[in-house]
This record gives sequence, C-alpha cells and structure tokens, in this order.
Amino acid sequence: MSAAEESGGEAQPWAEVTPDAARRLLVAAVEAFAERGYHATTTRDIAGRAGMSPAALYIHYKTKEELLHRISRIGHEKALDVLRTAGRGEGTAAERLADAVRSFVCWHAAQHTVARVVQYELDALGPEAWAEVVALRRQVDAEVRGIIEDGVASGAFDVADVRGTTLAVMSLCIDVARWFNVDGPRTPDEVGALYAGLVLRMVGAK
Amino acid sequence: MSAAEESGGEAQPWAEVTPDAARRLLVAAVEAFAERGYHATTTRDIAGRAGMSPAALYIHYKTKEELLHRISRIGHEKALDVLRTAGRGEGTAAERLADAVRSFVCWHAAQHTVARVVQYELDALGPEAWAEVVALRRQVDAEVRGIIEDGVASGAFDVADVRGTTLAVMSLCIDVARWFNVDGPRTPDEVGALYAGLVLRMVGAK
Repeated sequence: MSAAEESGGEAQPWAEVTPDAARRLLVAAVEAFAERGYHATTTRDIAGRAGMSPAALYIHYKTKEELLHRISRIGHEKALDVLRTAGRGEGTAAERLADAVRSFVCWHAAQHTVARVVQYELDALGPEAWAEVVALRRQVDAEVRGIIEDGVASGAFDVADVRGTTLAVMSLCIDVARWFNVDGPRTPDEVGALYAGLVLRMVGAK
Repeated sequence: MSAAEESGGEAQPWAEVTPDAARRLLVAAVEAFAERGYHATTTRDIAGRAGMSPAALYIHYKTKEELLHRISRIGHEKALDVLRTAGRGEGTAAERLADAVRSFVCWHAAQHTVARVVQYELDALGPEAWAEVVALRRQVDAEVRGIIEDGVASGAFDVADVRGTTLAVMSLCIDVARWFNVDGPRTPDEVGALYAGLVLRMVGAK
C-alpha cells in the first residue's frame, strides 16, 4: 500500500491550507482537540505545539472556534469528495454503493483523528459555522441515499425504510473513526472490504 | 411507552449509587463531562452543578478520575446486563440476536449522554481503571459473538468473518449514542426495531 492510500487517498492532508504556518497550526489544533477535547485546549496550547507564539497564531486565526470551523469544513468537504468520486462512477447501484462504503470507511480509518474531532466537537461550533457544516452533512447523506434509491428503483435492492437504512449505513462507516486502531489487526482497506459486503447485505442486494 | 422504557428499561438510573449526595455528584459529572469534555471539567464545576461545596465532593470521590471510573464501570455493567438479559433468553439464534440488538440500541438511545461519556472519555482513565473497563467491554463483545457463533453452528446464519461482523454490529449499536436526538423523528424502540432487522441481514439470517 502506498503512503497516499494509507492516508485515505491523500498524499498531503491539509495541502490546501496556506501559508505553511497556518497549516502547522491546523495540524496542531487537530492533535490538541483530539487529545484533550476542544474546551480544554487553549490557543496557547495550539501555538506551543506548532512551535509558535500565541501572537503568531492570531495572524492566521482570530479565535479557537475559527480553527475548529476550518477543520470541520475541510474534513466534511474531503469526506464528501471521497464519497462522490466513488459513488458517481460507472457501474450498477451495488458496485457504486460498495465503492462508496469502501472509500468512506478507508477515509475514516486513515483520518480517524481528524474524523473524531469533526464528529465529537460539532456542538462547539457557533450557529453560523454549525449551519454550514450541517448543510455539508446533508449532502453526504444525500449522496448515499441517492445510490440506495437508485438500487431500489431498479429492483437491485430491497429496502423498506430508505432514510433509516441510509442513517445506519452512514453511522456504521463514521463510527470506524472511534474504534479504528492503527496497531489493530485490520488495515483501512480490509475494514473497507468487510463493510462493503455487510452494507450490500443491509440493502438486500440481489 | 412508560418512563421506565423511555430510560432504556431503567426506572431510576444510578439507583445503586448511595448515599444520595454521591448519586447527585455522579449525575452532575455525567452532564459536565458530556457538555465540556472530561479534561475541561473541574471538581469545582461538578460540585457546583450538584449544589454542593468542593469539600463535600471529596468526602465521596477522591479525584475527578474516580468519578469517571465509576460512571464508566456502571455504564458498561448496565449495557452488559441489558445485553445478557435479552441475548440469553429462549428462542432461536435469530430471535436472541434481534432481542439483544433491540435492547442494546434502546439503552444507547435512551442513555445517550452516559454512553457518550463512557465511549469518548475511555482514554482519560488511569491504567487500572482502563484495564477493568476493557475487560467489561470484552464481555460485551463475547456476548454478541456467542449468539452469532450459535447461529453459524446451527446453519441459521451465514457469516464468513465472525469477529469482523461482531465488531460491525457492536459499532452500529454503540454509535446510536452519537446521533440519537430525543427531538428526532424516531423513538429508541423504533431505532431498535429497524436495527434488529438490519443486523439479521448482516449475519445472513435465513
């Protein structure tokens, strides 16, 4: 497996964040939030981890919440991108669903630290940032729901409750970020393959 | 639905914690940890929420970690108890698995605040407390794995990877605590029924 595959398809996470100092601060914030929680982390902690002064942090981010907002937005955009690339390919609904689950699971396993921060600190966002992130989450849901609806329409899937089944499929994939352990017995790809098979069963794929 | 059913089968959560002051402190700690995270919560915050002085807290709990340990142990013991009561009843492997999933999901939905603290703050426990809680988690896993193994042995289930499938089933149920919303469209019982059906599909129940 290449380094890019191990990081869930990303050769350089946060490459879009520039300049370099802003990116280092973001990476430091992810680590600090994951270790101690958002509320227990100070901007001083984050600056210290990045080897910078608190004053240098404020050049790039006005508040701690701005850091969380940026992490959460980029994290959701990446997850959505991974899902769309896989789920909108050629193939039957079953193939597209399997690909989408595999990619989404790989991303949550490989990027589990970012994913945990993004999932568990949602309530710490202010109202505007929260609304923006919730809109992205709805797009993520709609992507998976669309594939399931396609499969039901073509008779390939047998699903009584499309919304509930979509919720369960998303939940199963997202929770990989909670339990995944890099020292554990399974690679992100192996978890992805296992879960793709289980999800096809959940939708009653023929 | 009765009040006892709404609380996941518990008429009086934490009833085993005595005296009353110790129980009030525990309830206050769960709320504070869930809102702000373990590391951002002080014993002063917890005492204040319970309407007590910090000195009164130390009569019952020597440290903040002792509170988290107690919450985590009781939370895991309850979840294990709920699972065993349902999963060891009469009936086929499919009936027992459906009952176990339904009960476990109901508990995680109704007790989502406790369950979130228990799941997300595991790493904040000291080594001894952590080892004790991990042993309880292994028993929870073994309970579900045992039912799946029974079903495979009798030919009722078709499962290629029993450990992996057990992990996925547990993960699906536990993650209900993350997304469940008391103001949402589904009751704990409805989520339990939906999930019992999905899990029977995951194990290829005939």
